[in-house]
Amino acid sequence: MSPVVAFLTDYGYLDEFAGSCRLVIERLAPGTGVLELTHGIPAGDVRRGALALEAAAARAGVVVWLAVVDPGVGTERRAVAIRSGDGSHFVGPDNGLLTLAVAARGAAAHAVDISNSPLRLEPVSRTFHGRDVFAPVAAHLASARPLEAVGDPIEPSSLAALELPTPRRDGSVLLAHVLYADGFGNLILDARPGDLPDGDAGTHSVAVGERTFSAVRAGTFAGGDGGLVMVDDSSGRLAVARDGGSASEHLGVGRDAELRIASQ
Amino acid sequence: MSPVVAFLTDYGYLDEFAGSCRLVIERLAPGTGVLELTHGIPAGDVRRGALALEAAAARAGVVVWLAVVDPGVGTERRAVAIRSGDGSHFVGPDNGLLTLAVAARGAAAHAVDISNSPLRLEPVSRTFHGRDVFAPVAAHLASARPLEAVGDPIEPSSLAALELPTPRRDGSVLLAHVLYADGFGNLILDARPGDLPDGDAGTHSVAVGERTFSAVRAGTFAGGDGGLVMVDDSSGRLAVARDGGSASEHLGVGRDAELRIASQ
Amino acid sequence: MSPVVAFLTDYGYLDEFAGSCRLVIERLAPGTGVLELTHGIPAGDVRRGALALEAAAARAGVVVWLAVVDPGVGTERRAVAIRSGDGSHFVGPDNGLLTLAVAARGAAAHAVDISNSPLRLEPVSRTFHGRDVFAPVAAHLASARPLEAVGDPIEPSSLAALELPTPRRDGSVLLAHVLYADGFGNLILDARPGDLPDGDAGTHSVAVGERTFSAVRAGTFAGGDGGLVMVDDSSGRLAVARDGGSASEHLGVGRDAELRIASQ
Repeated sequence: MSPVVAFLTDYGYLDEFAGSCRLVIERLAPGTGVLELTHGIPAGDVRRGALALEAAAARAGVVVWLAVVDPGVGTERRAVAIRSGDGSHFVGPDNGLLTLAVAARGAAAHAVDISNSPLRLEPVSRTFHGRDVFAPVAAHLASARPLEAVGDPIEPSSLAALELPTPRRDGSVLLAHVLYADGFGNLILDARPGDLPDGDAGTHSVAVGERTFSAVRAGTFAGGDGGLVMVDDSSGRLAVARDGGSASEHLGVGRDAELRIASQ
Repeated sequence: MSPVVAFLTDYGYLDEFAGSCRLVIERLAPGTGVLELTHGIPAGDVRRGALALEAAAARAGVVVWLAVVDPGVGTERRAVAIRSGDGSHFVGPDNGLLTLAVAARGAAAHAVDISNSPLRLEPVSRTFHGRDVFAPVAAHLASARPLEAVGDPIEPSSLAALELPTPRRDGSVLLAHVLYADGFGNLILDARPGDLPDGDAGTHSVAVGERTFSAVRAGTFAGGDGGLVMVDDSSGRLAVARDGGSASEHLGVGRDAELRIASQ
Repeated sequence: MSPVVAFLTDYGYLDEFAGSCRLVIERLAPGTGVLELTHGIPAGDVRRGALALEAAAARAGVVVWLAVVDPGVGTERRAVAIRSGDGSHFVGPDNGLLTLAVAARGAAAHAVDISNSPLRLEPVSRTFHGRDVFAPVAAHLASARPLEAVGDPIEPSSLAALELPTPRRDGSVLLAHVLYADGFGNLILDARPGDLPDGDAGTHSVAVGERTFSAVRAGTFAGGDGGLVMVDDSSGRLAVARDGGSASEHLGVGRDAELRIASQ
């Protein structure tokens, strides 16, 4: 059976962009299952896209990943296809978007530059590579065409990396950063449970700018009795959540904010 | 042929949550069709989810329903799978979400507690049962695994019920309540056409707080000539709509508002 | 193999409306692939729906198009099914929604009125023809039922047309109109590159009301160095975009605004 294509973009839901890509896949590889991860990545937010792909990859089987968050479409940035150690394929721009998911599936074993792939749809629009470059390549890979046939070999080590913030310690205080706020308003941090000062239990203080909040270390969102909880995200990162509400609104912070966390 | 999985959540479209569930279904039951009803249920709004499932169930065939609106994820609430009288299966939290749709498909004939199902994905995240508990069970049911194999039998009568408001009469006035405003701004009420005072025709007054509006009883949204109409919702409930606009904005009301309706 | 159904509506993502239609298709034509183009067309915006269908049709194969943007649902407007010159089928209201896509696929060769189709689901809701009229007809066409069996023949020339604005010249100034702003804030115009005064290169002035902006004629969104660019949309129309931002917000305009474009 052909693998499915798992599809993620920042195209949003107002326009037909994602649908146009799906029509191309259907035309080139009829009957291929396409599974939409999300098209709601904020416009141009490569890091958010990379983290979403990583999370989705955690419990997936072997599929073809098609991902387009591509603020540099039409410029010099390469378009690439990658085969990872477990046999998954990844298609997208070479801007760090695929980095985390590829790593989660056994690292890049082989990679090709598809910028001038013979499988592109001509004439190639300079503003819509999702439809004209990435979707056709993904369709052919889903139809079991070998990676070598879709582009020119490149060194996996030459693939663009993704820049992520990292948590720091300042004495007994953990300085963590908000990677993103999810749709429930949960704040996903760059820190992991092992980074917490003074052990992983009890109540912590969470300071943002001049304000300080209390957060109960909990196993579930419902552990905070209406207040803040600090839970393990399903990807293994720490998250600050609010029982029955939005931590992002409550703290008034989002992407890139720094939180100072200490044990109370 | 395997039945499809009809999938509804409050996960929204910003994140990869629904996609992660679909990837699990694809891994466990390759080729299973998954039909997304909506992931736009307001966060934690169990009643809205239950009404959406009921509406979708009205003209569906026999499918596996997978529904996750689960503010109590990770707490004591049970996770359940249910077979209804017509052979449909339902998988979700036991919090009333499934109640109306199960009733619409012949009532609960058999039910099992899947909180500790042997089919769960280990380690089970305490915050993402959609991916780790509900989706795996739905995948196995779609692959024709019997209900008895996915969990521990429970009495159907022990399943949680859903609380809904009910319309009342105060003399010749019908007191109805807004169950929800749909995406067009139509106000879906708990009352049905037979509840209308003085017969089901003509112009009615609709009072909200201190303000009173006129609504024409009509068959279609276009019957009001730019004003308010009172129509039968496709689920058989009364709805207040505005021809070419949003009744919710026009009246300034939403979920749980009380409308006093009288014949004019 | 049965063709897929490409599905577009203004139903939005909050409600189960699109899902209810998909359940009907699955029931009547099990296993039919349904490919969602978008359900995010602004409520009742027939023109935006028509343009989205046209864009998606550009690189599609032969499919069944199911489109519902239908502010006149339940009124005298006809419901129609159309076969175009290349064998594609189109199902929707006869209000101009299908016009551009049908033209792009070889013009209407045959058309039928399905308002009273024997394939409708009874009782037909007066407010939800998507589920009760259009989806059933699309399902049967996807199952290879002939067009003649789903409705009563009508003259293709009697089909409703779509009204679109047209660009004008005023001396050396091009008066163009915003057809719509897409989800990235790009302004899609009624003008095409050949309409540009004084050749198709260099910097242009774009005036809106009393304000004038500069826009660089570019091949990609990234050509403007943070400012405005004028690019070819993937459908061949001119678009005003902003490198890394929203042209719609920057100019403060949207649908139907008139832009006065001159070479600088």
